[in-house]
Amino acid sequence: MNNFNFYSPTYFAFGKGREADAGKYVKRFGGSRVLIHYGSGSVVKSGLLERIKASLLKENIHYVELGGVLPNPRSGLVYQGIEICKREKLDFVLAVGGGSAIDSAKAIALGAVYEGDYWDFYQGKRVENALKVGTILTLSAAGSEGSNSSVITLEEGMLKRACGGDVMRPVFSILNPELTCTLPAYQTACGATDMMAHVMERYFTNTQNVEITDRLCEGILLSIIKEVPKALANPNDYEARANIMWAGMVAHNDICGVGRDSDWSTHQMEHELSGLYDVAHGAGLAVMFPAWMKYVMHHDVQRFAQFAVRVWGCEMDFQCPENTAKQGILKYEQFLSSIGMPIRFDELGAKEEDIELLVKTLGLGNRTLGSFVKLTEGDVRKIYELAVY
Amino acid sequence: MNNFNFYSPTYFAFGKGREADAGKYVKRFGGSRVLIHYGSGSVVKSGLLERIKASLLKENIHYVELGGVLPNPRSGLVYQGIEICKREKLDFVLAVGGGSAIDSAKAIALGAVYEGDYWDFYQGKRVENALKVGTILTLSAAGSEGSNSSVITLEEGMLKRACGGDVMRPVFSILNPELTCTLPAYQTACGATDMMAHVMERYFTNTQNVEITDRLCEGILLSIIKEVPKALANPNDYEARANIMWAGMVAHNDICGVGRDSDWSTHQMEHELSGLYDVAHGAGLAVMFPAWMKYVMHHDVQRFAQFAVRVWGCEMDFQCPENTAKQGILKYEQFLSSIGMPIRFDELGAKEEDIELLVKTLGLGNRTLGSFVKLTEGDVRKIYELAVY
Repeated sequence: MNNFNFYSPTYFAFGKGREADAGKYVKRFGGSRVLIHYGSGSVVKSGLLERIKASLLKENIHYVELGGVLPNPRSGLVYQGIEICKREKLDFVLAVGGGSAIDSAKAIALGAVYEGDYWDFYQGKRVENALKVGTILTLSAAGSEGSNSSVITLEEGMLKRACGGDVMRPVFSILNPELTCTLPAYQTACGATDMMAHVMERYFTNTQNVEITDRLCEGILLSIIKEVPKALANPNDYEARANIMWAGMVAHNDICGVGRDSDWSTHQMEHELSGLYDVAHGAGLAVMFPAWMKYVMHHDVQRFAQFAVRVWGCEMDFQCPENTAKQGILKYEQFLSSIGMPIRFDELGAKEEDIELLVKTLGLGNRTLGSFVKLTEGDVRKIYELAVY
Repeated sequence: MNNFNFYSPTYFAFGKGREADAGKYVKRFGGSRVLIHYGSGSVVKSGLLERIKASLLKENIHYVELGGVLPNPRSGLVYQGIEICKREKLDFVLAVGGGSAIDSAKAIALGAVYEGDYWDFYQGKRVENALKVGTILTLSAAGSEGSNSSVITLEEGMLKRACGGDVMRPVFSILNPELTCTLPAYQTACGATDMMAHVMERYFTNTQNVEITDRLCEGILLSIIKEVPKALANPNDYEARANIMWAGMVAHNDICGVGRDSDWSTHQMEHELSGLYDVAHGAGLAVMFPAWMKYVMHHDVQRFAQFAVRVWGCEMDFQCPENTAKQGILKYEQFLSSIGMPIRFDELGAKEEDIELLVKTLGLGNRTLGSFVKLTEGDVRKIYELAVY
């Protein structure tokens, strides 16, 4: 097991109706002048935004609104948010929405206390200071409600880039599963696929003997596999939504990833896909993860066999563990299809002839990607090709 | 799933040699005048205490020492610690040891900022304020390094009582598995038994549809079951010690218990045992948990069958799930025996004729104990009796 630090200080308020306490939590964590940051009209139409404003007013908290966050959140809106925070001397950013709203809020929180261009942090500058961020989650997927990271798309070239740091953990996150019951099936499935990917990026590692995090990873995957079909069959199944919502948090606050190297090459290959085509991140992952697995499986057949047996209930083929490993990947693909996810380029609307562009935008050059298997530019090209057929 | 709050803000520094940073972490979390609180001579003899003092001196942190914490930590030493903190105007308590040292440190931290008798908190007074506590863990068991609670034994009558509150979470905990390699086999096994009990007190619940925390509980148990025999066979197996150490934390910081009612009746019945006979808490749990299981099993046979299948690898008997449930309890008992734990009164040194005293000290009267099954005084007596044979 590797040495590690684990720090997840976010206060989670989970359950029905908890958004009514938004004002109370902003106050408890020191906010007095708030930017409410959100995305689509559903936050407005559902009445959620009004309820949150009422909760802030009750605590005499001043607020300014900035809506309009898009999926794959854009750099431009972040600049607007930073400008508002500086001009209005705001001290807290309250994100209402899914990962896009939260990631955008985190970027604003960074930029609001920085004199330079906040994009510096997305190009590798060390994160040391930020406004406090709170979240009210409406979509179970990205795990940004508990994570220390943020992904933003630079409009110029549609480049997706990530940054992270301890100060980017939300001080509180309100998770009410009821708010996710109105999500369409496709978005629910995309969210689940994203969560599973967060776990698997940690699961496939070269670090040996990390049984405790192996088992936590497997437990989270098993829960998602059981609960997502229930939520798709009955969108108002509160219990399924609740299990999925908490699974999304534990999948990405790193409790299941400590002590081991993680990979993240699939996420990066996907970022190029959703950057270029503006498709849902989860859908892109559904296409890229099985392709990556097929390409790297032989690096550690026993680990893939463990995944197949423990997560997908495959019988171990002791004479030929490779069969078991393959069976696990197949079952994963079948599961993705069963919840309505694309698993090949054409289902996603991606084009084989764009592969060179994807590889070029990723810009590996002579560097490598990932950790489980260090992928060269040539490897990446082949993985994109595997995702075609 | 129940509504819940989850708040685990402790900074965990995990791995080889991490205690060298003790001073750095005390400083980062605002400590300048420290009470170092520890137990047995091994902390001194091993040189650990000297290393920690050196680390504090390096950061110009003033410290006072108070050793002598006993297993099942006593109320008397807590008063001494409080008096020192007040007299010397200390602002931080640094526990070095296992759950006893940490629980005692938490009690001192409560009392140091309170005008009345700190025992008030162990009799139900609401916890609102405390000095900051940091920990350097040397024994994987109690989970107090990440928990919000503390258990202290009142010398007058040897009464064990618990209290809890958010401010009692350590601000940092340093977990170096190397420090646990010198632990004797019996203590290692007692620690593992305690961890497993922390998970199972949460696992056996009447709350339905909490698959995510079910799976996390099962994952932690599976890890402990795999790793403990390795640590017993080879005390210097760092990887096994590391897995066990992190399992002990996640077993009790409540990440595996949120959203569900938990029980804790076995812990309370055990507290009377270790209070009366001053035996190791883990050993007492090894005796009491199987007895409790046998007594309450029929309340939810399917849950016990799930425990048997998922945790102990039993075959499900679909015609008679009760057989499977019983098989799981038997496997659990066999495991406890295999790691050297007592599973009956006589192996522990407890006496059948003391059962009335145990029941009386527990002092249920007309109240009930636990949540999975609400136990009357008569039920408790029968469970103690089941632990005899």
